[in-house]
Amino acid sequence: MIGKPFSLSIKVIILDREGRCLLLKRSPNSQGNPGKWDFPGGKADPGESFDQALLREVEEETGMRVCLTGVAGAAQSEVPGRRVAYLIMEARLESGQFRLSEEHDCHAWVPVAELPTWDLAPQFRELADGYAKKHMRV
Amino acid sequence: MIGKPFSLSIKVIILDREGRCLLLKRSPNSQGNPGKWDFPGGKADPGESFDQALLREVEEETGMRVCLTGVAGAAQSEVPGRRVAYLIMEARLESGQFRLSEEHDCHAWVPVAELPTWDLAPQFRELADGYAKKHMRV
Repeated sequence: MIGKPFSLSIKVIILDREGRCLLLKRSPNSQGNPGKWDFPGGKADPGESFDQALLREVEEETGMRVCLTGVAGAAQSEVPGRRVAYLIMEARLESGQFRLSEEHDCHAWVPVAELPTWDLAPQFRELADGYAKKHMRV
Repeated sequence: MIGKPFSLSIKVIILDREGRCLLLKRSPNSQGNPGKWDFPGGKADPGESFDQALLREVEEETGMRVCLTGVAGAAQSEVPGRRVAYLIMEARLESGQFRLSEEHDCHAWVPVAELPTWDLAPQFRELADGYAKKHMRV
């Protein structure tokens, strides 16, 4: 038996100098998780490497340039006809002027310890809990 | 400041019907982690999707066909000039006749609860601990 095909999405926890991370609120007419808080990122275009894709998505969605610093974790979700595997990276802000794309309604810089209290897209809740706990132990 | 570039590697925890998972022992002349136990998988070729790449690598390294069932976690490592981000999937055995490639010396089917006691490549130890704990709770 063959399962539903998987696609890959790369997301990122972007940290500022105060250790807060960037969340974007999905617009009410989003196909998936309308109105939920999300991390920047998305899918690679054909022929694009995963890190190029992530840096492009971040710039499209936020106007910012970031520098990848590590791997934060993984997650998964299921939509009709397809499953999505998420690799979630960690990055720090480098440069740029913040601006939102039409995909999102607003943004917030959230202290990492408070991440689990935000109304995140459900596939990222376990990751957010684990990441906040790890951050508090450091 | 720009950090070392990241490349992406996709690995997989393959489970058999008894709930044991497949480990491969890296040959003594491997470039990275010689003699350590590893999961099957590797990097995507240009233009190849992450799941196609993983199924191809599994077939090259083990002769087996598998069906992806979920996302197991993420990990990272650092080598001179480059960092590697790992997405680790979960799969079940489908078909095929087991055979090793030259990359590996031997293989073992390991009860998931025993994973943390094996001499794994260091980047997978945290994942193995978490995966074994999660498996015992199910």
